[in-house]
Amino acid sequence: MIKTAVMGYGVVGSGVYEILRKNADVIAKRLGEEIDIKYILDIREFENHPEKELFVKDANVIAEDKEVEIVVETMGGVTFAYEFTKKMLMAGKSVVTSNKELVSTKGTELFEIAREHNAAYMFEAAVGGGIPVIRPLVNCLAANRIKAVCGILNGTTNYILTKMFKENRSFDAALKEAQESGYAEKNPAADVEGTDTVRKIAILTALAFGSNIDDNKIPAEGITKITSEDVSCAAKAGYAIKLMGSSFIEGDKVFARVCPMLVPYECPLAGVEDVFNAVQFTGDMVGNVMLYGRGAGKSATASAIVGDIMHIAKRNEFDPRFAWGEERENTFIDPADTRYKYFMRSESSEEEIKEAFGCVKFIEGCSDAFITEEMSEAECEKKGEKIDISSKIRVYEVKE
Amino acid sequence: MIKTAVMGYGVVGSGVYEILRKNADVIAKRLGEEIDIKYILDIREFENHPEKELFVKDANVIAEDKEVEIVVETMGGVTFAYEFTKKMLMAGKSVVTSNKELVSTKGTELFEIAREHNAAYMFEAAVGGGIPVIRPLVNCLAANRIKAVCGILNGTTNYILTKMFKENRSFDAALKEAQESGYAEKNPAADVEGTDTVRKIAILTALAFGSNIDDNKIPAEGITKITSEDVSCAAKAGYAIKLMGSSFIEGDKVFARVCPMLVPYECPLAGVEDVFNAVQFTGDMVGNVMLYGRGAGKSATASAIVGDIMHIAKRNEFDPRFAWGEERENTFIDPADTRYKYFMRSESSEEEIKEAFGCVKFIEGCSDAFITEEMSEAECEKKGEKIDISSKIRVYEVKE
Repeated sequence: MIKTAVMGYGVVGSGVYEILRKNADVIAKRLGEEIDIKYILDIREFENHPEKELFVKDANVIAEDKEVEIVVETMGGVTFAYEFTKKMLMAGKSVVTSNKELVSTKGTELFEIAREHNAAYMFEAAVGGGIPVIRPLVNCLAANRIKAVCGILNGTTNYILTKMFKENRSFDAALKEAQESGYAEKNPAADVEGTDTVRKIAILTALAFGSNIDDNKIPAEGITKITSEDVSCAAKAGYAIKLMGSSFIEGDKVFARVCPMLVPYECPLAGVEDVFNAVQFTGDMVGNVMLYGRGAGKSATASAIVGDIMHIAKRNEFDPRFAWGEERENTFIDPADTRYKYFMRSESSEEEIKEAFGCVKFIEGCSDAFITEEMSEAECEKKGEKIDISSKIRVYEVKE
Repeated sequence: MIKTAVMGYGVVGSGVYEILRKNADVIAKRLGEEIDIKYILDIREFENHPEKELFVKDANVIAEDKEVEIVVETMGGVTFAYEFTKKMLMAGKSVVTSNKELVSTKGTELFEIAREHNAAYMFEAAVGGGIPVIRPLVNCLAANRIKAVCGILNGTTNYILTKMFKENRSFDAALKEAQESGYAEKNPAADVEGTDTVRKIAILTALAFGSNIDDNKIPAEGITKITSEDVSCAAKAGYAIKLMGSSFIEGDKVFARVCPMLVPYECPLAGVEDVFNAVQFTGDMVGNVMLYGRGAGKSATASAIVGDIMHIAKRNEFDPRFAWGEERENTFIDPADTRYKYFMRSESSEEEIKEAFGCVKFIEGCSDAFITEEMSEAECEKKGEKIDISSKIRVYEVKE
């Protein structure tokens, strides 16, 4: 029997507890061994919990108990979660987490500590909730040089954009509905401004290309400025607007960005709606592979965590494939040099627009909207100075 | 260094050779060890091959060479492939295959031989080409009870149906184009009649639910009877027609079927076009997860094979999670008892149709097409006797 502990009994932590109890039989059958929970760490009281004897308030109880092999961290944040994760790894225990902030900001250091103590630090649940993402990348696509990663990585913003698209809502109205349905938090900043997506694409990029990416280097735009007119004009041209985290490698240079993008309908990412998430990897051998499912939620996220626990239970040691190294200096591409087509809306005359941008494609049924040819960010910025631009959204190009 | 051999130097086998040479550096880095090819088995001559010294014609050379740890079987068919796979497993070598026919018909026996000799028998490439399917199911979703599996598992038929849908082609015209583009074989029976899909859904079903499914029990209908009118009427009602392999479990009873189905546009499976494939698993915790990508082709399939080689290189032993047991008796649900809504086209009058089927939904713009309420196959068969039916296609219901 493998003994585990859960740190943080919130939505995801209680989901882990529930799966380990509810599916104990299938888990034991598949693993050839039972998984038990010995402790739950939480500062709150759970007097009415059916197993209230499991609850402890002191992380040292877990760290010092030699029987506990695997610890789940579902506390969130980077203060206590960071301290307790270090403590557990240093005690030789493997840690499984859904904490994307901690993995994206402290991953490199925590991998090093895990390596030193030959413990695993696994984080499938930190990106894409229940969707298998990390292991398919690391294992199944291991024969490929990964060229690009992109994805719809945040359910809240995708729910809002879907509402704007399907029901012609304004951003504010759609956000309010998302809050009322429990899909957006009272303070939605981390979602709608793209911070959550930055953390996730930082993790995927580091793993795909092998070295850490500083979150702060990743240019991020949220969806707060997207209007319902943008959405309907894009639709008329055959595009859905999605908040995309994307990254690519060119030689030894990497780039990552978070921004709303126009995704053509023929691309399967355009069909990812509501709170669903999808991640696409482009490998030199396999081409494009997309993984799709529920990117958040109690059971889906807990499903990924228990999957990691079972993985570690089979092989409890540090595995360098599930880690990345320090950031390499001077390898992050200057955002100004990256190239896109741009969707724009402008009150300027057709002539002025053509004078500024040359050959553009006006969108039928949206007299003020057009799509430019491909150019660099710097070029676009400069050319745009000559006209009034009310909306400017990058166009996602399907590559393989 | 890990020594391997490739049996069968056709499209996929040569793809494996090429990846192992071209990406040798990343493979060695990720694995911490190099992978080399010591032999290639093929009865044909490859006088101009740059490494012609690798070619052998006798499988015993490989079987008797203790240095060879992993053997790739990309021969196809069940005669020699079966014999040689057994020979390699009995010599304690692990085998990686893309041979869906062999895995679906002889899997149970080959797993047993692999288990006895503590060798691995892996088959990620047999379903969905390069798409990670087997390992996400077995590893990442290990905490779930799988409730259902379905997928678009054959690229040829999906290419034909996409042509019929987008370019309003007849089945015959679309098939001809597929043959000219190299997406369909001269004798397309295995694809268009559903046999290829049967093998793949048999493998996924056995793996998801733990016991073998006899291919011959799986009711299969191909796409040869689908007309361009069916496709356009379905489109008017908001559905794409796809050849689906699907299966589910209810208590201890399982069912699998291959048939064309109407898939509603809001389901991501409807957006899978051309030669792309997608597999959807429904887990009790994670809900629906979809894996999408190139289901065939040299590099994509070889990518999955090399992924399996690297998996085995890390852990060369029999793993019961990647296998299934004997078929359990009397557990296959009677096809007549399975329930669907049906899309039909009929020359009979609206009154006759309503008399036969009760409440149906006629499709606007297609006076002869309608969708029934849900009923069992047996019920539908009986009710249908009263009217003339020119097309009858099951409707896929999105469940979670």
